[in-house]
Amino acid sequence: MTGDEERVARAGLSRIAEPGDPEVFRAVASLGAVEVWESLRRGVPVGRLTQGVLPGIVARADGLDPRVDLDRAARAGARLVCPGDPEWPDGRLSWPTGGDGDLDDPPPLSLWVRGDWPLAEAAARSAAVVGARAASSYGLHVAADLAAGIATGGASVVSGGAYGIDAAAHRGALAAGGSPTVAVLACGVDVAYPRGNDRLLGAVAERGLVVSELPPGSHPTRRRFLVRNRLIAALSVGTVVVEAAARSGSLATADRARKLNREVMAVPGPVTSSMSTGCHVELRRGATCVTTAREVLELISRPGEHVATEPRGPVDVRDGLPETVRRVLDAVPVRRSIGVAALAREAGTSPIVVQQVMPPLEAHGLVQRTPEGWRLTALGTGKVPTSPAR
Amino acid sequence: MTGDEERVARAGLSRIAEPGDPEVFRAVASLGAVEVWESLRRGVPVGRLTQGVLPGIVARADGLDPRVDLDRAARAGARLVCPGDPEWPDGRLSWPTGGDGDLDDPPPLSLWVRGDWPLAEAAARSAAVVGARAASSYGLHVAADLAAGIATGGASVVSGGAYGIDAAAHRGALAAGGSPTVAVLACGVDVAYPRGNDRLLGAVAERGLVVSELPPGSHPTRRRFLVRNRLIAALSVGTVVVEAAARSGSLATADRARKLNREVMAVPGPVTSSMSTGCHVELRRGATCVTTAREVLELISRPGEHVATEPRGPVDVRDGLPETVRRVLDAVPVRRSIGVAALAREAGTSPIVVQQVMPPLEAHGLVQRTPEGWRLTALGTGKVPTSPAR
Repeated sequence: MTGDEERVARAGLSRIAEPGDPEVFRAVASLGAVEVWESLRRGVPVGRLTQGVLPGIVARADGLDPRVDLDRAARAGARLVCPGDPEWPDGRLSWPTGGDGDLDDPPPLSLWVRGDWPLAEAAARSAAVVGARAASSYGLHVAADLAAGIATGGASVVSGGAYGIDAAAHRGALAAGGSPTVAVLACGVDVAYPRGNDRLLGAVAERGLVVSELPPGSHPTRRRFLVRNRLIAALSVGTVVVEAAARSGSLATADRARKLNREVMAVPGPVTSSMSTGCHVELRRGATCVTTAREVLELISRPGEHVATEPRGPVDVRDGLPETVRRVLDAVPVRRSIGVAALAREAGTSPIVVQQVMPPLEAHGLVQRTPEGWRLTALGTGKVPTSPAR
Repeated sequence: MTGDEERVARAGLSRIAEPGDPEVFRAVASLGAVEVWESLRRGVPVGRLTQGVLPGIVARADGLDPRVDLDRAARAGARLVCPGDPEWPDGRLSWPTGGDGDLDDPPPLSLWVRGDWPLAEAAARSAAVVGARAASSYGLHVAADLAAGIATGGASVVSGGAYGIDAAAHRGALAAGGSPTVAVLACGVDVAYPRGNDRLLGAVAERGLVVSELPPGSHPTRRRFLVRNRLIAALSVGTVVVEAAARSGSLATADRARKLNREVMAVPGPVTSSMSTGCHVELRRGATCVTTAREVLELISRPGEHVATEPRGPVDVRDGLPETVRRVLDAVPVRRSIGVAALAREAGTSPIVVQQVMPPLEAHGLVQRTPEGWRLTALGTGKVPTSPAR
């Protein structure tokens, strides 16, 4: 376990240095956090942090007591996790930082963590689910579905807490109630950004984890978002891009995952949708095409691990259906017809999706058309077994 | 050029043996078509065609004059193309047929060809565009769009003349009026199958090629469809699957293309659509994800070949838009609003596609919402240049 002096030093460095600062990382790697922190607060050059870059850091360090941040974090239900702590996900957060002068986005020196799960445990079996803020209804639907399946399958859903795909992924994981979901922020773990996700981030902190390199109260900047993306990729076994425009931050996260030798996955979508363009770019770059949570779980699990957790039961046509289709089918009432709009509402999806899934269900003999819309067949009600149970 | 005796023999073999018969192929490969044909019509065992399999073949050969088929073909504007003819696409139609007893779907012994293009020329730069008969409106739209772009880019679109994706591909290529489109049938080149594609196949024969291993008047069987699929894959530089259910003939064609070391491509679609499931299976098997005709052309061209034909012009936001999006944009009237349904009609696409492409166009500042639907902005009308022309 990290000692008190070490934790205070790292809290202080978190306050005075920007996340991912290569010179501070290099100085800490060679001299230790305590020496670097003590030197900087006294205005003494250390490592490559000489007179040229020192003044700004020194100004921030002047009179700073890192215990104030540690106390403030504690009041918000957060803690500072450092290398050496049992919950530090060591294998995930150390990567080669290149040769002399080639330090590019080094690993974090510490992480502020809000929530009850040990960070290493939450990260052990995890998938980042990322994508556009301006997502389409298709993307939001797929993100929620995928995240729910990943959580149910025993893996954590990691994302960035933003609007759009991020929020849909966190919500899907929370609704499924399986493994914890992890929001990695570009601001303090106690800061509600974006404002509209305030309640969502609260729920994530309560039932999962909110993580950041930045100390309490910090606000996001463009640079902090970019540096944060590397953490999402690094903490996760694999990264899934659900929807992304041609040039987007999600592709940067996927690129980082690739460089870290993590699994890179992309969800396909209509070629007519610009919000799927980035996913198709990733597929052409070699990302694995994933269409279901099961396919994601297979890629982020050790060989054989996930296969063993596949549910077994009586053989039923329904069992083979994709989750989305299943959900729509389950929303069709047993003894009466339902219109497409009402069915979409019941199933929590869009009328377009309903219109896409009904003809295949009809082909399976599970539903039939009526003047009012759709109704279940005898087979669809489950009264006629489709094959003997085993 | 193949001699008259040889051509008559191959016409006769085409009438009495099923396409892809391994024993007939093997016998012809070792003894020559003339000897095999003469032996069979006299009921004499030849190669492995001994008493066990001979009776059926002999019955068909009895009293047969292959010149009748050659004349019948000529009246339908067709000819029999044989190995050795200048238009026989030699490199495409010879593949290793394995060791002893391992002949599996051997190359064709001859091809009935209806239409004015030399077959080898039509096949030289070509892409098979294949997919489901029960295609979705999305699939039909993408197939037509892709085929049009491939034809305009100077490559032939090869397909199977069936309903759904096949028909959309042939129609798209014909409408674009570039390179010829080639329909490879599982029946005679003079047989209208399916009936509803009668006029389409006539147009293909008039401006492209209709090709078959089967002699005039032959009707399709299940087996003939399967064997035909290998010809589609073999004749083309690459095969694109546009839409396919999980287990479908199109995947068999793609599989065959893979085994022949041809390029295998798949168009992604919504993961919520069962008609894209087969495409996503192909992507997971290593098929290249393609979303535009340009990407297909790049894969089926020699390095650098297609890049040189890329159009150049003033830089404009519109230039970067996918063809589909562009077509919808071009259909928006200049000085008034238009509703989604009317816009879909104008653009020759579906309301769903229009609803998908408008928000990104709005984000580009090219269109704006109105109470009646959509209208162009000043930027969208092209009156405000988005960047200087060069």
